[in-house]
This record gives sequence, C-alpha cells and structure tokens, in this order.
Amino acid sequence: MLWPLSPDRCFSSDPARRTLARALYEQVNTLPLVCPHGHVPPQLLADPVARFGSPTELFILPDHYILRMLASQGVSLAHMGIAPRDGGWHETDHRAIWQRFAEHIHLFRATPTGLWLATVLVELFGVTERLTAASAQRIYDQIAARLAEPDFTPRALFRRFQIELLATTDAATDPLDHHRRLRADGFPQVRPTFRPDALLALADPGWRETVSRLSSLAGIDVVDYRTFIMAIEQRRAAFKALGALATDHGVETPYTERLSPVEAETIFTRALRGAATASDAARFTAHMLIEFARMSCEDGLVMQLHAGSLRNHHAALLARFGPDKGADIPLATEWTRNLRPLLNAYGDDPRFRLILFTLDESTYSRELAPLAGYYSAVLLGPPWWFFDSVQGMRRYFDLVIETAGFANTAGFNDDTRAFCSIPARHDVWQRVSCDWLAGHVVEGLLTEDDAVELAGELAVGLARRAYRL
Amino acid sequence: MLWPLSPDRCFSSDPARRTLARALYEQVNTLPLVCPHGHVPPQLLADPVARFGSPTELFILPDHYILRMLASQGVSLAHMGIAPRDGGWHETDHRAIWQRFAEHIHLFRATPTGLWLATVLVELFGVTERLTAASAQRIYDQIAARLAEPDFTPRALFRRFQIELLATTDAATDPLDHHRRLRADGFPQVRPTFRPDALLALADPGWRETVSRLSSLAGIDVVDYRTFIMAIEQRRAAFKALGALATDHGVETPYTERLSPVEAETIFTRALRGAATASDAARFTAHMLIEFARMSCEDGLVMQLHAGSLRNHHAALLARFGPDKGADIPLATEWTRNLRPLLNAYGDDPRFRLILFTLDESTYSRELAPLAGYYSAVLLGPPWWFFDSVQGMRRYFDLVIETAGFANTAGFNDDTRAFCSIPARHDVWQRVSCDWLAGHVVEGLLTEDDAVELAGELAVGLARRAYRL
Amino acid sequence: MLWPLSPDRCFSSDPARRTLARALYEQVNTLPLVCPHGHVPPQLLADPVARFGSPTELFILPDHYILRMLASQGVSLAHMGIAPRDGGWHETDHRAIWQRFAEHIHLFRATPTGLWLATVLVELFGVTERLTAASAQRIYDQIAARLAEPDFTPRALFRRFQIELLATTDAATDPLDHHRRLRADGFPQVRPTFRPDALLALADPGWRETVSRLSSLAGIDVVDYRTFIMAIEQRRAAFKALGALATDHGVETPYTERLSPVEAETIFTRALRGAATASDAARFTAHMLIEFARMSCEDGLVMQLHAGSLRNHHAALLARFGPDKGADIPLATEWTRNLRPLLNAYGDDPRFRLILFTLDESTYSRELAPLAGYYSAVLLGPPWWFFDSVQGMRRYFDLVIETAGFANTAGFNDDTRAFCSIPARHDVWQRVSCDWLAGHVVEGLLTEDDAVELAGELAVGLARRAYRL
Repeated sequence: MLWPLSPDRCFSSDPARRTLARALYEQVNTLPLVCPHGHVPPQLLADPVARFGSPTELFILPDHYILRMLASQGVSLAHMGIAPRDGGWHETDHRAIWQRFAEHIHLFRATPTGLWLATVLVELFGVTERLTAASAQRIYDQIAARLAEPDFTPRALFRRFQIELLATTDAATDPLDHHRRLRADGFPQVRPTFRPDALLALADPGWRETVSRLSSLAGIDVVDYRTFIMAIEQRRAAFKALGALATDHGVETPYTERLSPVEAETIFTRALRGAATASDAARFTAHMLIEFARMSCEDGLVMQLHAGSLRNHHAALLARFGPDKGADIPLATEWTRNLRPLLNAYGDDPRFRLILFTLDESTYSRELAPLAGYYSAVLLGPPWWFFDSVQGMRRYFDLVIETAGFANTAGFNDDTRAFCSIPARHDVWQRVSCDWLAGHVVEGLLTEDDAVELAGELAVGLARRAYRL
Repeated sequence: MLWPLSPDRCFSSDPARRTLARALYEQVNTLPLVCPHGHVPPQLLADPVARFGSPTELFILPDHYILRMLASQGVSLAHMGIAPRDGGWHETDHRAIWQRFAEHIHLFRATPTGLWLATVLVELFGVTERLTAASAQRIYDQIAARLAEPDFTPRALFRRFQIELLATTDAATDPLDHHRRLRADGFPQVRPTFRPDALLALADPGWRETVSRLSSLAGIDVVDYRTFIMAIEQRRAAFKALGALATDHGVETPYTERLSPVEAETIFTRALRGAATASDAARFTAHMLIEFARMSCEDGLVMQLHAGSLRNHHAALLARFGPDKGADIPLATEWTRNLRPLLNAYGDDPRFRLILFTLDESTYSRELAPLAGYYSAVLLGPPWWFFDSVQGMRRYFDLVIETAGFANTAGFNDDTRAFCSIPARHDVWQRVSCDWLAGHVVEGLLTEDDAVELAGELAVGLARRAYRL
Repeated sequence: MLWPLSPDRCFSSDPARRTLARALYEQVNTLPLVCPHGHVPPQLLADPVARFGSPTELFILPDHYILRMLASQGVSLAHMGIAPRDGGWHETDHRAIWQRFAEHIHLFRATPTGLWLATVLVELFGVTERLTAASAQRIYDQIAARLAEPDFTPRALFRRFQIELLATTDAATDPLDHHRRLRADGFPQVRPTFRPDALLALADPGWRETVSRLSSLAGIDVVDYRTFIMAIEQRRAAFKALGALATDHGVETPYTERLSPVEAETIFTRALRGAATASDAARFTAHMLIEFARMSCEDGLVMQLHAGSLRNHHAALLARFGPDKGADIPLATEWTRNLRPLLNAYGDDPRFRLILFTLDESTYSRELAPLAGYYSAVLLGPPWWFFDSVQGMRRYFDLVIETAGFANTAGFNDDTRAFCSIPARHDVWQRVSCDWLAGHVVEGLLTEDDAVELAGELAVGLARRAYRL
C-alpha cells in the first residue's frame, strides 16, 4: 500500500483557507532551519565518521515518545531493546525490535510521532509503501541501505537540511570537547547551551562529585557559595566562547525566592557537608534562578526555563532502566506568584531575556501570555513536548496571540534528540502556523500582507530575534 | 411545528467532511450498544412486569440535569415533583410537572439534555411536533400511550436497543437479588458493578451500620482491618460470580497513600469505636484505593475511578431533598502526584486495569493523557457528566488523542440512569467521533481506512477491550 | 493603503455559516447598547463642555492594553506619556507619542486592541488609510479635526451610540456629584456602581482615611463593626437613589467565610487601631462578601464579583507610575469551595443575584458553568479582560453554554474606560455570538428561529435581565 502522505496535511479543508495556507507554506518551507533548543548529541556532528547506526538505533531506541506508547500497551522496554541497568536480558536483534514497532504502528495514528515518522520515511528516505508488519523488513532494508550512502552521514544531512543554527544542551560540567572540534571543523552553526541543573541538586548523592568536576573544569576550587558562583560564571564564559547563546533550566516548579547572603552560604555549606535536605535544594534552586537571571543580564546569554515535568514518575522503571524513557508526567504549574521575585528584579532589564516553556496549557492564557505581554524580558516559548503537535499548536496560537501578540513569542524550536526528524518537526510548525494565519485572513482578522510577513516571522524571524542571532 | 431533528446533527458543515462523517456514522450506528458503566436500576429489568411509569417519571423526576437547570431559574424541586424529606408539599400532578418542564424547554437549547430529549422523543416515541408549552399535553398523551404498549416495556426496549452489555452500579452491600433474577431470567448481559464507597466513609454516622450489613452479607464477622479486607474480597467474588466486570470508586480527590499495617489497623479500630475523624477517612480511602488495585490484580475486576465532584454543594438542599439533585460541583483535580503511589505499585501489572474519569478538563492533556500513554494499566475514560456533550467530546479528542492515542482510551459509556436515553447518548458519541475522524481525514492527518476502523473501535471495540468482554 | 476592515470580520469562512451569521448580525447591530459594567469616568458626561482631548489622550494614555504591549517590547511608560510619580521626565508631545504608537502598530495584529482600534478609526472617525508610521500624523490630524466638531463631544456621541444604559464604577466613598449632575441634566441612563473594595483593605496605610471619608459621607460615625455596616448600607442606599443597579467587588481570590460577630468586631477594632494584618484583611474580606450578599438580598442591588487578578505584579512600576498600567496578571482561581459559604447562605434566595467574572478559563466548564447552572442567584458574566476577544468569546461559548445554558449568563458588558470604543466592543461580541449561533444551526444543534431569538438575547436581552433593567 502506498504511503498516503498528503501534500496538504495540517491544512483546513475549507478551500479558501487551504489555498492561502498552502501559498504561505510554500513561501516559508524553503527557508533555512533555525534550531535554538534541542538535544542532538554533539558528537554525532563532531565526529566526521559518525554514522546513525541501524534503523532501530536511529528511530526507536532514543525516542521516548515511542517507548512510552509501547509501554502503555504492555510492551516492555527490554523487548524494545533497552538494556536494564542490572545487565538483565534485553532484545538485541534490531530487526526484531523494528518488527515489534511496526506491529504496533497503529498506536501512532493521529499522533505527532506518527506524523513525524511518515514525513521522515517518505520525504527523507524515499519510502513509498506504508509501514506495516508486512512491509517492516523491506522498509528496514531500504533505510539501512540509505544510511550506508555517503550523503546520509550526519554532516551531510546537516548541510542538506540547511540548518542555520543548531543548539545542543550540555551539562555545565561538560568539557565541551565536541563543540571545540565542531568549531575547528567549520561547524560554528552548532552551539552549546549551558544547563546547570545538576549543580542545584544539593540533596542528590552525586552532587558533591558534580561540584568537584565543576571545580576542576573552571579551575576554581569551590569551597563556599562565593566560589561556587565564580565557578559557574567561569563556565558560562567558556560556553559563550564556544558560541553558546543561551542557558537552559529544568525545574519541577518555577518557584523563585531571593535568599539572603547568609542563608545562601548556610545552605551551600550544609550541602558541602552532605547534609542538605530536599527543602534546602528547593529554596536554593529558587534563589539560583534569580542569580542566573542576574548573570544573563551581565553576559547576555538568553535564559530558558522549562518547568512542570515530574521526572521519573515510575520509580521501578527508573531503577531498572534509568531516566528519559517516557515516564515523565506534567504537573499543574503556577507562574504568576512564583516568578514574581525574579521578574521584579530583572523583568524589565533590557539586557535580560527569559523564555518560558510550560506543560500546563491552562497557563497559556491565564499567566504566560499576560506575563510575556507585559515584561520586556519575557518571551513565551513554543508548545513543548506533548504539545508539539497539530492540535497543541492550534491551541497555543488561539490561547496566546490575542494577549501576547506574535512579538512576545519565541518562534519554534524542535527540542529533539532525533536529528533526522528536525525538518519534519519544523514542517508541522510551518504548516499549522500558515494554516492558522490563513484562517485569520479568511475571517477578516488579519490582512494577507500581514499573514505573509508573519509566516516568515513564525518560521525563522522570531526565533532568530529571541536568541539574538 | 415539526421537530427539526437534523439527520446531520453534530456533523461539520464542511461538505467533504460531512459526507465522510455521515458514511462513517452509517457504518457504526447499527452496531450493538456496549454500556459498561451506568446507573440503570437493575429492578427495572429484573422485574418482568416493570413499567416506566408516567412520562414525568420517565423523563423528569430522576434527571438531575433537568432538575438543576430548572433550579437555576428559580423553579424549586418541590414544584418539579421531588418530595421533601420532611414530608412537606410537593407537586404530585405529573401533567402539571410536565407542563412546567415544557414551559422551560428553551433553557435546554444547545445543551446535551436538549439533544438527548429530542432524539428520544422523535426516534423512540415517534413524536413529530416540537415540545412547547402549547404541545406539552398532546405529547404527554402520546408518550403515555406508547408506554402502555407491550413493546415499550423495559425488557422489550432492552432487546430493541440491541444492548450487548449493560453494567449497573451497586453498593458493595447490595444483596444483588435483582442480578440473581436477571441471570435466571436469561439476561446475562446485565451485570453488576462493585461500588464500595460507603465502606470507606469511616466518619459518617451510618458507617458502622454499613459494616454490619457487610458482615452479614459476606458471612464474615468484621471485627478488625483484616476481617474487613476479607469481607470485601468475599463480596467482590460474589459480584464476579454474578457477572461483574468492574468496580467503581467515587472520590473527591484521587489521593493515594499506602498506610502501614499498624496505621491501617489503628484507624480502622478507631472507626469501629465511632471515633474516626475526617482525616482518618481521607487517609484510609487513599490506602484502600491501593488495596482495591491489588484486589483487581488478583480477581481481574477492572477498577474505575471517578474523581473530582464535590457532592451536595448546597447543604440546605441536601437536608431538604437528599443527594443526586443536581448540586454536585466539580473541583480542580491533581492526578500526577496523587496517583503515583498506586501506579508505582500496580501501574505496569499486566493483570491490572484502571480507568480514570475526570471533571477537570485541564487535566486531559496535562496529566491524564500522559499517564494513560505511559502506564500499561491505565486507560482514560470518556468525557464524564457535564462533558458528555458535543463540545465536550470534541475537546476530549483534541486534548487526549495526540498524547494517549486511541488505544489508551476506554471508548464510550453512557453513565446514565435514564434507560430510554441510552441509544441517544451513544448516538451523540458516534456522531461526534465520526465527525472528528472525518475532520482528520480531510486535513490529511488520518487515512480513510484508518478512520473506518477507528469509528468501529470508538463505537464498541475500545469499550469491549477496556472491560475485558 | 486603504484600511482593509472586512465587513465580514469574525465570521467563519464556511459560506452557509457566514451567510446566516451575517443575517443574525444585521438584525442585532441596530439595537441599543446596554453597558451595565464599565469604567467610563462620569465627569466625561456630567460636564456639558467636556471634550476628549487629543487623539493621544483619547486612545493611548488611558489604555492599559496598549501600554502593556509597548512595555513588553521595551518602550517605557514615560516614553508613552505617562508621568512618573516622582515628577521625572516623560514625553509630553502628544504627536510624538502617537507616532511611537503607530511605529509599533504591528504588535497589535490579531489582537482585540487592534480590532477595536480599526473599528473605531474607520467606523467612527472615518479614517480610510491604514495606521502606519507613514500615515500617523495625517490620521492624527483627521482625528483631531473630528474631535473638534460639535457632534464629537462625549454627550453627542453618547446619543449617537444609542446607549440605553451606561454604568460607571465608583468608590463607595465617591460623593457622586457627577452622577447627581447627570440625573439633573437628563442622563438617567448613566448610573453609578457601588465599589467598596478600599473599605476592605484593612491593612493598607490609607484605610483609616477611607473610613473617615465613609463616616463623613454617610453621616454615621464609624467607631466599630456595627457602625461600619450601617455606614455601608447608607452609602448603598445613596447609590441606589442615584440609579445604581449593582455593586462590584474585586478580589484576588473569591474566598468566603462567615466570621462570628465577636471575630468580626475584634478584627475591625484591630484595624481601627492600625494593627490589622494581611490575614485579618483576607478573612474580613471573605466575611464581608457574605455580608454584601445579604445586603443585596435586602436592597436589590446586583452583586458583581471579579476575582483572580494579581494587581500590580511589578512593584517598581507601581512605585514609579501607579496602578492600572498593564501589570495586573491573572491567577489560578478556585470557586467551588471558596464560594460555598456564601452560596449556601444566599445562593437560592430569589432576591439575590451574583454575577461572576473570572480570569481563569479552566474554571468556565469546571466550576462556573456548573455553579451558574444550579444556583438560582448565580449568573456567569461575559469573558473578562484578556478574554474579551474573538477567540476568548468562542472558548467561552463552547465551554459554558452546554452546562449553564444561555439563561444563566449575563450577556455582554464592555468593561471599558475608553468611551469611544464601546460600540466596537459590542460589535465584536455581536459578530462572534452570531457566528457561534450560526455554526450551531448549520451543525443541526440549534434551529434557525432559536438562533434569531438568541442573537437578540445575547446582544441585549440577557444583560437587561441580569441587571434588572
């Protein structure tokens, strides 16, 4: 059976709207890709002989969307090729894993994963028949053959994708060797992003080890709060020297609170003694978010804040297979009160920029659009994670634009570790945004010339400005 | 005036979408009805000579949607025929009550109650003129005449409706005589559902009386926590022997917490002494939800959890007229943290199935679809109560499917005590789901063959699998 | 470039739906305007020689929507002509301010501010070219010329707008001189609204001064809780004598709690001593809301409750420029538990009417429609503030009507201090509501004759009944 990938997918069926949506889309889908936030491993591009591995390694093993959906239907991670930490059995036959995935492909109907997969297989790998249990091995062969071709290396695809910017996400204690090599090899478009979350996990068993790595990388012996701050600032400078545009912060709640110098020192000293509590860690994180805002004012790195994911909801899964396997569940999130101390300190500082990401859609219109539509430092990031989807984007535009306008949003970012899916993800965003603009034109709420301009803004302009490219 | 019940109601006006929606709908609306959760009184079908009573008894007196809407416009329950507990006056003239309802029929424009009523009157009772103050008595006569016919008995309609399964909801201490008779009389499709809520209301004045009934029905003298659990397990077995597929649990909040054996025993003993507090009852309920999950693993009964209704918001109404009169108001509900202890214990047990129902639509995309899309035991129930409506279903599909997929939902259930409205409620679900699928086809997000298959899944397949039929 | 203000703006592009929407709209847009809640300064109409001032004074200086959007892009309030409290510099050249606004007009694409502005400039001021940086001064001239004409005085426009009722919002301690003059001058359609918020701010430094003003206006020496209540009742009577139909209450949270007489007296006495705490003020407010409900039962004033705005989120802005400059941010709001004490006391009192306004759209379907659809006293107000917009109205109808019906809503109110924009705001409401009704007709969910009647109800009927006109 032929793969029925509609050239008009994501467009309204109203003829007037669809015609305009298509015209807008055709104008923007040849633009370069701007990818200011994501999780592509830098070694993939840093190593000139890196390859994607098997189709299973490319499409399944690293994809938490796929792993979670199969888990939800009782297919264990071990059967999908994920190695238990205790060395127990797991499927190692990549063709068998691929077959199992194909047998469950119906689970992904009307989901973004299904849409991305279809787009990548058809448009990048030239697959023409639909993925089913029957066609699975033929398609596996076809992908594998393509992956062996010289123009399917990561670097070759990077060029083919016309990527203007690709930001990775890197621990504050990452030595950044890959990024150093990328710059040396002529890939300055690949940039690191400073992610210091592990440094704030004061009550975690591995925290002191992380601080030691920080000391040694920064060349500053972290013995108290003051040297901790100095070492962080040194690392930010090192990231910036390798092209970093931004920092990234992941928190369960966006609670911010300024500690007094004595409190900060006391908590930090307690942590160094290994005696920090969960409450210490929470208050210290709340304080450090304000400190990171201060540093952003000073060094110009854009601050990204991703809040509201309860990571590793399933304790047994974490113990057996580790993190990032699809068991992160969103939480109701409060932004108005929580961010107030930070925003009162730096929200109208012209040097500061803060991009907010939520997993609680009820906050789009209630808190985030109003905040972004008032504080000059605040932009609202695109729909994140589960909401990086056709309906998720439509809700986002409907709930955000009337209050925040377009100019207080940060365009799109794909937030993916699946390098090959980057064009497919931008494609969905471009299609949905063009269709949304077209809808406004046919309803007399936007002029056609504004829609043309805004289609380009949503595709690349807003992202470039948000990250100060 | 003729009743303008459109054959294309609930379908989009877009011609391409409507044509496809209609085709999908025609394919599924001849399927049998699967009704795995509802509140039809079993005696209605157990008693071979049972009748529906007057039109007012059939349509108005038991319908909390109607009572609440009339109350909201100042029509007292007593005027609508509800007897006060103190024996005070209430309208007993059923024609007068019906007339009063007809005079307020405009209140139900664009509501699901209005849609169900129109469907039942036109399609079941053959009414052709619209219900108004002027036509009220003529229509009353017409309904009354029909109800007197031999093919309008409950059992006759049960057969005509092609009901494959009808689950009732029954207190854990119900003797199940009606269900015993139903099985004896050849109605194995009618099955009980085990609802133990009253057993958890430790601080209620009637609790010890309920426990006594439990003791006597189970034949186990409940003297401590251990015998309480044994007696519950015995009752579950008795329900199962009469065909039960599921249990049902109604809670204000889905808070779960494992008590230590000592704590459980201490609280239970305090309750037996009549000294349990509200906090005891809340923690004991939180613990028992985990215990019920364990029992479900062992006996295979599907666990249904309905959370987030603040029952009897209006204290004076409760005192005067009793519960279930339309004064239950939803609450914001937290699922991610609250269910974690239960799901960490049993969420990936292949023997376990947990179906969740919410009155807080903001949790669809934020918490419930992510939980159902990860834990193998969890399914998301259909839109409940106020959201069992055209717009409510559209929001449900838009907010749930992209993250949870279809396979992690439980299809439809009508949740009604109004037996005659069962086909009308399924009809709305079928129409809205077919229209939603058709919309995805015309937007290139689903293939037509997938839509055909999914229409059948949504109509009956998912419900059958969810309840292990 | 001509201003492309579509005559079919806000209507669906579906031809059948649009045709019907337009027909419904044409029927209602000639009706008088009913404006039962707003913030037009009464002196504007009380003073027969009042003028609107410059185009900048008319459109920009008092408009917090505009100020916040420009602030969000780094344009300071001082540059937009707002005087700092410390007497610091601010732009005083109104043409320069207008020019700056025009240079940022792109920020308002697809926002309600943009839509209102276009409507007012084109339909009221006869502007034909689009507002841009290039056309700004020409359009300024054109507006200024119009404003100098005799038929552009506030009173002339009041008549031209066909305003049947215009309620202002006035502090409880306002002497109401303007309203006295309005009645004397033949403008009984302009009515005051009693707003006692400042009297409940027990912990504010200015509270005792406010109480003094209350004493002197009421002619009752407020020395304890009892005389405080008496003085409030006296002021309500004075407002009512000048035509007031309603009271208005703005609170961060709709928490209600009945204090014992001793508690109320104790807290009030502490406040008179200047020793009230924030918690005192919160509990006293919770108590007084119930007291205001009681007074409404007795004097028939409709009670309006606006909850959920965290005022003056930005402390530095408040210190520098004062309140109402666009820095008010919504909060998640709980209604079900919070309103229960008040509604249990007065929710079914036939003399009582309570209109609720929210900034938390997740409460529409979860709490507010169920409450309005049960308690006879409760109506749900129209979409407020950020949600007084095309998409905001569509969500409101979709989320509210199925549960509350139309009859439990309060129609529209424009809630504006921008007098000239009143027709534009009603126009958006009429267009969106007619389009929504038309959508229901073409989907077979409403008959055309019902849609005709409901269009009129939504335009004026519901508002008239809600405020007992």
